[in-house]
Amino acid sequence: MITLASDFGTPYPAAMKGVVLQRTDARPVDVGHDFPRQDVRTAAFWLREVLPYFPPAVHLVVVDPGVGTERAALAVRAGDHALVGPDNGVLLPAARELAAREGDEMEVFEVEYADPASSTFHGRDVFAPAAAEIHEAGVANLHEREDIVLTGEYEDLRFPEPSLDGETAVGEILVVDGFGNAVTNLPGELLDGREEVSVGGESAPVARAYAEVGPGERLVTVGSHGNVELAVNRGRGDEAFGVSVGDEVRVE
Amino acid sequence: MITLASDFGTPYPAAMKGVVLQRTDARPVDVGHDFPRQDVRTAAFWLREVLPYFPPAVHLVVVDPGVGTERAALAVRAGDHALVGPDNGVLLPAARELAAREGDEMEVFEVEYADPASSTFHGRDVFAPAAAEIHEAGVANLHEREDIVLTGEYEDLRFPEPSLDGETAVGEILVVDGFGNAVTNLPGELLDGREEVSVGGESAPVARAYAEVGPGERLVTVGSHGNVELAVNRGRGDEAFGVSVGDEVRVE
Amino acid sequence: MITLASDFGTPYPAAMKGVVLQRTDARPVDVGHDFPRQDVRTAAFWLREVLPYFPPAVHLVVVDPGVGTERAALAVRAGDHALVGPDNGVLLPAARELAAREGDEMEVFEVEYADPASSTFHGRDVFAPAAAEIHEAGVANLHEREDIVLTGEYEDLRFPEPSLDGETAVGEILVVDGFGNAVTNLPGELLDGREEVSVGGESAPVARAYAEVGPGERLVTVGSHGNVELAVNRGRGDEAFGVSVGDEVRVE
Repeated sequence: MITLASDFGTPYPAAMKGVVLQRTDARPVDVGHDFPRQDVRTAAFWLREVLPYFPPAVHLVVVDPGVGTERAALAVRAGDHALVGPDNGVLLPAARELAAREGDEMEVFEVEYADPASSTFHGRDVFAPAAAEIHEAGVANLHEREDIVLTGEYEDLRFPEPSLDGETAVGEILVVDGFGNAVTNLPGELLDGREEVSVGGESAPVARAYAEVGPGERLVTVGSHGNVELAVNRGRGDEAFGVSVGDEVRVE
Repeated sequence: MITLASDFGTPYPAAMKGVVLQRTDARPVDVGHDFPRQDVRTAAFWLREVLPYFPPAVHLVVVDPGVGTERAALAVRAGDHALVGPDNGVLLPAARELAAREGDEMEVFEVEYADPASSTFHGRDVFAPAAAEIHEAGVANLHEREDIVLTGEYEDLRFPEPSLDGETAVGEILVVDGFGNAVTNLPGELLDGREEVSVGGESAPVARAYAEVGPGERLVTVGSHGNVELAVNRGRGDEAFGVSVGDEVRVE
Repeated sequence: MITLASDFGTPYPAAMKGVVLQRTDARPVDVGHDFPRQDVRTAAFWLREVLPYFPPAVHLVVVDPGVGTERAALAVRAGDHALVGPDNGVLLPAARELAAREGDEMEVFEVEYADPASSTFHGRDVFAPAAAEIHEAGVANLHEREDIVLTGEYEDLRFPEPSLDGETAVGEILVVDGFGNAVTNLPGELLDGREEVSVGGESAPVARAYAEVGPGERLVTVGSHGNVELAVNRGRGDEAFGVSVGDEVRVE
C-alpha cells in the first residue's frame, strides 16, 4: 500500500498516482490533498495524527515549498512503515510517532536522485518514483540500496512544549481544523476533574462532547489527538476564542 | 467493500480509512468527505441518491454533531448492504431506499461500544471499527452478534412531502448542490407536458437540459434524483430564484 | 483500471463510482472532481498533463455543460487507453498526447445510447456505464461493438499556438493552478540561458525553482508541463503579474 498526502488540490495528485500505478501493484490510498498550501508544520501535525492508524505502508508526502532547490529527498523508516518526501521536517513528527508505537528507532535516509524531468514538480518526478521503488524493494531492505544513504543531517521539526507551572499552563495553538477547532499543545489531562477553566482571562466550561453546551457556545475539551482544544458547539472555536495558529494560550 | 462518507474534509477521513485497512482486506471507497459540515439532513439526502448505485457494501457514514453524547451508534441492514453511523437520522433515508429497491424491510440495530479512545472522534474510534467488524462477519450475520441489538428506538429522518392540490403544488427546497441547482421535493412528473411554470409568482421555462436555455437564463427541470429542480444554465439557480434550503416553493 | 475525473465536487462522483463498481471488477481511481465547474478547456489542459502518467486504463471524464442536449457521447482510443466522455473537446488534447506517446493515431468513436434515466446526469446514466462496458470488452475491441461507431465528426479542442518572432514571444495564459501559478503556452526553451525576461513590459527574474527568489517575489520559470509559468514564491503569480486565463503575455 502507498498512501498519498499533499497540498496540491486538483489535479497534480493524479500525476503522482499515475506514476505509482505505472510502477507498482501497490494500492494507492489518498490521505488527503487539501492540506493548507505550503504549510509544512500543519501537514506534519496532521500526518502524525493519522498515519499511525494505517497498517504498514509507504507514505508519500509532498508539501514542498523548496521544490527544485538543493533541499534533499528523504526516506524515513519507522518500524514497517516508510515515509518519503522533502527534507523540510514534514515527515519527522509522524515518523517519530510511528517508530515509538512500534518500540523502534526511526532511521533517516537521503534519497539521491538524478536530474528530474521538472524542477517544479518533484512529487511526480522524484518522490513518487522513489516511493514506488521502496515499496517494490520492501521497507526492510532500505539499507541495501546504493542511492539511499543513512544520514544524520536532516531538517527536524518538533512542536513546542507547553509550560506547565502550578496553576497556570501556557501553551500555543498548533493547528485549527476545518471545523474551527483550535488545537493546543496542552495535554488533555490538564482538564481532569475540572468543570471550567480560564482561557486568556475568560472562563469557559470544560466538556467531554461539543454538544454538552448549547449551539454557538464555547467549550474547552480534549480533542481526538489528546490535546486541549478550544471549540464551539456547531460553530468555530478559533473565531469565538479569537485565536489563530501560533498564538499563546494561557489556561488557569 | 467499505464506503466512507463524512463532513470531515482533510485529514480526519484518513484516520478512518487507516482503521478500516488495519482491520480488514475490504477495499475502502470514498463517497465524499465534503458534505456540508454538521448538516445531517443534506448528507442524508445525498446518500439516499448515491448509495443505491453501489454493489453490496458496508457504508460508513459520519456526520455527527452529537459525537460524545449519549446518542447511540447504529447499524442498519438493507438487503445486502449495511450502513453504520450515528443515531441522528443520517442513515435512514438511504437505508429505506436501499431496502425498497431490494424488496426488503430495513432492520435497525444499536451497536454497543465500550468507552472509546476519544469523545470527539467516534468516526475513528467507534464507527470505523464497527464497520470493519460488520464487514468481516458478513452483513447477513448481524443478528448473531451480542453487542449489536435489534432496536425499534432510533431517530428517524424523513423529507417533507409536497402538497399537490389542483393547479398549485407547494413544496420546499431540500438541498442546493455545488452547481447551485436547487432541488425541491416536488415530483418531476409535475412538469410533464408543460412548457413553462410559475415559480414563486414568476414564469420560468421548463427544459429537459440546462443548455436548452441561453447562458445565464433560468429554467425548471427534472434533476437526476427525479425531483423538480430550479436551475440556471451555466449559473446558480439558488441565486437566480432567490431560494435556499427550507424555503417554500409554489409551482403553478 | 477506470479513472474518474469531473467538475462535480461532492457527492455526484460517488454515483459514477457506484455504477462502475456495480458493473466491473475494475479498480476506480479518482483523478479529481474539483476541476473548475463547466470549464471544458481547463479540464482538457490538466487531463493532457496527468493522464499520460497512468498505465493503460479507461478514463471516464465528465465536464459537460451540454448534458441532455444533442451532443454525442464519445469514446476515444489512444494506444491501450480509452477516454469516455461528452463530445465537447474535453477528451481530445489528452487523447492526442497519449496516442503520440505510444506512436499511435487516436481513433474517435461515437457511443450510441438509449434514452437514459436522467437528462441532467449523463455521467451516471451514460458515461459510467459506457466506460464500464468498454473496460469489460477491452479497449482493443472497440471496433467490434455495433453501438460504438468510428466517427470523423466531433468537436475538437486545441490550445492556441504562441507567436515566436525574433526577440518577442507572444502567448497567452492557458490555465492558473491552485497555487496561483499562471501557465502560458510559451515553450520553456524560451528561457534557456536567460537570467531575466520582460513580461508585459516589466522585468522579472528567470528561476529554476520557486524558492530561488525571496518569499513574495515574482519569478518566471518552466512549469512541470514544460511551459513558461508566471509565479511568486509562496504567493500567487496570477495576482502579482495581474493576469488571468486568456490574457495575452508578451515575453521579451
